[in-house]
Amino acid sequence: MKALVYHGPGKKAWEDVPDATIQEATDVVVKVDTTTICGTDLHILQGDVAAVTEGRILGHEAVGTVTEVGEAIKGFHVGDRVLVPAITKCGRCEYCTRSMPSHCQTVGGIGWIFGHLIDGTQAEFVRVPYADTSLYLVPDGVSNEQAIFLADSLPTGYEVGVLAGQVRPGDTVAVVGSGAVGLSAILTTGLWGASRVIAIDSNKFRLEKALDFGATDTVEAGPNTVADVLSLTDGLGVDVAIEAVGYPETLLTAASLVRPGGHIANVGVHGTPVELPMQNLWIHNVTLSMGLVDTVSIPTLLKMVASGRIPAEKMGTHTFVFDQIDEAYDVFKNAAEHQALKVIISPS
Amino acid sequence: MKALVYHGPGKKAWEDVPDATIQEATDVVVKVDTTTICGTDLHILQGDVAAVTEGRILGHEAVGTVTEVGEAIKGFHVGDRVLVPAITKCGRCEYCTRSMPSHCQTVGGIGWIFGHLIDGTQAEFVRVPYADTSLYLVPDGVSNEQAIFLADSLPTGYEVGVLAGQVRPGDTVAVVGSGAVGLSAILTTGLWGASRVIAIDSNKFRLEKALDFGATDTVEAGPNTVADVLSLTDGLGVDVAIEAVGYPETLLTAASLVRPGGHIANVGVHGTPVELPMQNLWIHNVTLSMGLVDTVSIPTLLKMVASGRIPAEKMGTHTFVFDQIDEAYDVFKNAAEHQALKVIISPS
Repeated sequence: MKALVYHGPGKKAWEDVPDATIQEATDVVVKVDTTTICGTDLHILQGDVAAVTEGRILGHEAVGTVTEVGEAIKGFHVGDRVLVPAITKCGRCEYCTRSMPSHCQTVGGIGWIFGHLIDGTQAEFVRVPYADTSLYLVPDGVSNEQAIFLADSLPTGYEVGVLAGQVRPGDTVAVVGSGAVGLSAILTTGLWGASRVIAIDSNKFRLEKALDFGATDTVEAGPNTVADVLSLTDGLGVDVAIEAVGYPETLLTAASLVRPGGHIANVGVHGTPVELPMQNLWIHNVTLSMGLVDTVSIPTLLKMVASGRIPAEKMGTHTFVFDQIDEAYDVFKNAAEHQALKVIISPS
Repeated sequence: MKALVYHGPGKKAWEDVPDATIQEATDVVVKVDTTTICGTDLHILQGDVAAVTEGRILGHEAVGTVTEVGEAIKGFHVGDRVLVPAITKCGRCEYCTRSMPSHCQTVGGIGWIFGHLIDGTQAEFVRVPYADTSLYLVPDGVSNEQAIFLADSLPTGYEVGVLAGQVRPGDTVAVVGSGAVGLSAILTTGLWGASRVIAIDSNKFRLEKALDFGATDTVEAGPNTVADVLSLTDGLGVDVAIEAVGYPETLLTAASLVRPGGHIANVGVHGTPVELPMQNLWIHNVTLSMGLVDTVSIPTLLKMVASGRIPAEKMGTHTFVFDQIDEAYDVFKNAAEHQALKVIISPS
């Protein structure tokens, strides 16, 4: 089969590799019908993720068709159309039973193993371990081009942003950063009845998209961001500030936007310490949440996509076939230039 | 009447002042039968709280007897034994109706006004504004020497530590700092079924008290604090780390103790920014809460004291009369030397 193989920082190749096969009775092999690229894949290619070694097949998001099932598999059959989520879960460790498979103790101490600790989904076929507890059947009425975004980006914005931020009916929500994950938060914040959703970004294309995705207001990021948001909220600040970038400055912006009793939901990936103004946050009864996605909201999100409440397909702006995967990476890496959000990659 | 008057940094005097009187129809005057001293009073005396001006009567905690009621008062009568809590609430602003009177917009943008923005409770009498929505009747079966600690320290440990930290049955809880507020958290953590409560302090007397207050384990603060706590928790860390000191180092200790998916409940008052290791906390799905006490848990705590579930009287280690209030301050300021937790001060 063919797959996108990592060959060290800056190097990857779409090349022939041994076929994906059943190795454990709890495995399933899935033919990949749709995959995509995540910001994390770009980090890996920069050499930022030490655990990814040369020879690893990249990718952790897929929709596909089951082609082979291990002896122990009860819930899936050859021919099933399935979603392969970013998180693999054993279903029985303490973290899995707490609905926190992001820290599954069995599969690797971390639930994200595809394209990280084992071979990933940017391939013609992928081996899925712990398939009975990890895969999801894709219902009729949900297309591959919708379901693919439920593998990682939509659950990330929803779980780490909207749910952890405890958005409640009537709330005013600011989303700092309107990339794929920020837009995922915007797309799902309405589910909890936010009355106002303020999208913040430096990129005008993304702000336009934010309005299309459900934002009620946009603020161009700059020296007046905080003042602009305060003026939209009668000077009070927002109930929930979702940080979807991952830099110290953007987290501090989120912290400046939140009202007393409010919530900062940090979705961004942080690589350095952040000096937080505890002397101000403390007296404002602020809560700060953060974390890896668990993907446990996928069943909810699948129902909302099927019923038309979440137009997940809007996330995909560019379509490629496997042979064009280098071009897909280039477009995704230079997303602003190409007015891209997420790319969709399929066999042909 | 006599009262303890602030005369600028380092200066206070128990002296004659004009009697407390009704000024608004919503006021009540309370004869103070029991009061105490809070760490915040020490900060004020150091000149740390700019809003406290010369001539202000100190104190924000009292149990007393109603001696006069304003025309609009419906819920209290002359002779009622009442708890005067640290937080005054109008009962109708957005923050009061959200159960967050710590930020009451009516009484001063902050609910803590006694001994801060208006005259306080370290006096023979105190005027209580918004009395109908602020005072609590003390039930029979709860002594003044128990109720006084429900004015501030017990609700602080309970609301900002135990409730905000979302302690759940079976949880392992670490309390960093076993002073009055840390011990209040320890005393009330059992209400939510914590299976293990680890008290941390550098003071051996406080650690002994912690065991008496319900801690299951103690760890002497030092270079091995984190290793000691991890060894008590199978290397996993605690579900909830309550920070009850208010220094960058102690917050970082709390952050080092918490397991993936855990909660850091910051109760300590912070005066400076804190550099948080977001790169580690982020990947561990940690939540950090913080804030001022609302005192809205007082009805719950009164019931628990009345039923014997919370032995609040254990908090009071030293007793003084008003004429000895200077001595009371000295003992409280040098609490470790005197093996003191909280002091009880009454008219005679």
